[in-house]
Amino acid sequence: MTEPRTSLTLEAPLDARAVDLHAATTIVDGLQISNWDRKTLEELRAGGISGVNATCAVWEGPADTLKAIGDWYQLAAANPDLVALATTSDEIRQAKIDNRIAVLLGFQNTSSFGDDFRMVEVFHRLGVKIAQLTYNIQNLVGGACYEPKDSGLTRFGHTIVAEMNRVGMLIDLSHVGNKTSLDAVEASVAPIAITHSNPTWFVENPRNKPDEVIRAVTGAGGVLGCCLYPLVIGGKEAVLKDFCQMVARLVNELGPGRVGLGSDCTRNWDDEFVGWLRNGRWQPEGETKATWPEWPEWFVGPEDFPRLTDGLDKAGLDEQAIRGVLGENWLNLFDDVFTGRKI
Amino acid sequence: MTEPRTSLTLEAPLDARAVDLHAATTIVDGLQISNWDRKTLEELRAGGISGVNATCAVWEGPADTLKAIGDWYQLAAANPDLVALATTSDEIRQAKIDNRIAVLLGFQNTSSFGDDFRMVEVFHRLGVKIAQLTYNIQNLVGGACYEPKDSGLTRFGHTIVAEMNRVGMLIDLSHVGNKTSLDAVEASVAPIAITHSNPTWFVENPRNKPDEVIRAVTGAGGVLGCCLYPLVIGGKEAVLKDFCQMVARLVNELGPGRVGLGSDCTRNWDDEFVGWLRNGRWQPEGETKATWPEWPEWFVGPEDFPRLTDGLDKAGLDEQAIRGVLGENWLNLFDDVFTGRKI
Repeated sequence: MTEPRTSLTLEAPLDARAVDLHAATTIVDGLQISNWDRKTLEELRAGGISGVNATCAVWEGPADTLKAIGDWYQLAAANPDLVALATTSDEIRQAKIDNRIAVLLGFQNTSSFGDDFRMVEVFHRLGVKIAQLTYNIQNLVGGACYEPKDSGLTRFGHTIVAEMNRVGMLIDLSHVGNKTSLDAVEASVAPIAITHSNPTWFVENPRNKPDEVIRAVTGAGGVLGCCLYPLVIGGKEAVLKDFCQMVARLVNELGPGRVGLGSDCTRNWDDEFVGWLRNGRWQPEGETKATWPEWPEWFVGPEDFPRLTDGLDKAGLDEQAIRGVLGENWLNLFDDVFTGRKI
Repeated sequence: MTEPRTSLTLEAPLDARAVDLHAATTIVDGLQISNWDRKTLEELRAGGISGVNATCAVWEGPADTLKAIGDWYQLAAANPDLVALATTSDEIRQAKIDNRIAVLLGFQNTSSFGDDFRMVEVFHRLGVKIAQLTYNIQNLVGGACYEPKDSGLTRFGHTIVAEMNRVGMLIDLSHVGNKTSLDAVEASVAPIAITHSNPTWFVENPRNKPDEVIRAVTGAGGVLGCCLYPLVIGGKEAVLKDFCQMVARLVNELGPGRVGLGSDCTRNWDDEFVGWLRNGRWQPEGETKATWPEWPEWFVGPEDFPRLTDGLDKAGLDEQAIRGVLGENWLNLFDDVFTGRKI
């Protein structure tokens, strides 16, 4: 994200009730993939966010992931007033009290495990609490949202799901293929998340999820994190009211405990990084250079989270439901999954 | 392979005609995965073999593969009277004249490329001339023979096939899934090999190939290397005559230029290695420890190659066809593929 922030004064001022509710809630963002530094973390604090699943690997293998985790340890050590690495919901609740950001380290791929199932426990011990099974294309674990054919969950994938269940690492299906997603729900003995996607009935896109997948995930105790990334909301022309009405409909259809937010904020990157996300090392760059999409004026970064609270209030959700969406549902899911399972 | 060799005197002595034909032919083994040392290489010389596709990676990633290649450079440098690393058919023909073994470095997986298509050229420049697309289970490139669901050739797989075509690295489908195999034949602009498998009509096994795959490969100018590994010939009770009749039938059905041999010899390993082949790092070892299969008495290693020449003669193949099966068909395929293709 290189464009300048847009002021919160763009639209009508927020209701005082929404402002109070926002301030009183432990807010958790289901996923951000920003280029983290003190300034970027301060944006979260400005937005009232207390916990975030921060992506520290997308295409990286084990060795490069260790470096990314080392960077996080350094950043946390250098900014103890602002950030704390967390591995429990209680630590996120405490961060709210301390006015800090609790960071859960997360992967958007299982490439960090390489070909070795033992790496699940290794990275779990290093603080990684959430891992998406696949990122955009087929990997050793399963099919992905931009791969024309979906292998389903592979033999290695079954090993990985069982190992994640055992150690207590949350499985994320956001960029995963639909067949692999359904297989994963069936294979997993713990609830699963979609940390940052919307329903295809909201925007038809490979990154969004058909009802079958959403119902499988939430029916098994999981949570869908509604996503603000321009691609999955219909671009920069998307309307806040429509987004909040989508969330309200999901809450009504799936139940108040099953919906959260996963902004997919991509702050502080240059265009080279979006090329990396697009192509990794798996294909040549091609003639068209990848560029970041433009975000809607009402949501360009974490500081705009209060708008969502206001919008959810205006969409008719009650206070308890809004608290659930803003963070409580993630916290409950983390409490459930992070304990691990006997396999 | 830990069992002792069986003497060539087990069965009836070889026909003098077969012995002469064997000695006059440039013999190429389409694949061996032995634990190479001077003694193991001398077995090839004793068997009259001049060229071999020697596996130097199965589950290894890029860094471990570099080590394996370094080991080969050391072994070749220490035994210049016996072995030469080769990258052309002419070097194999020269090795025959010099009474040496020409070794083509080969992979049984694309794990050596990691997630980076550029590694195809890197390893090609280091002397790797043949790579199997997948080994037993799903990988980034495609589905495999022991993976219940076959993804087909993935998006990364299409990149890899194009890159192998470009640099002139032979694609091998032996452990690849059938759907991925058919996709690869369609995607490749150069002929493809099955270096070490038999038809399923000979022995029904996931490692053997249905007619559809064999005909696709050989119809596109490729070669099927008939395999001696116990699993794919029916175990240690398999009969030499049956094997040679299978080869003769394939020659008659597919044409004299389309059939070769790929013994899959596994000399000089202990049981730990077969556990590595079986489980890699992708699943726990389980309760049953993997062990090597027993080979039939008439073929326990490279020294038994003359038996095959005798058997092919007795199966009614003419001299030209036998020369093709023993090596000329591989040499012609290498000449064709190793030049590379403009993509």
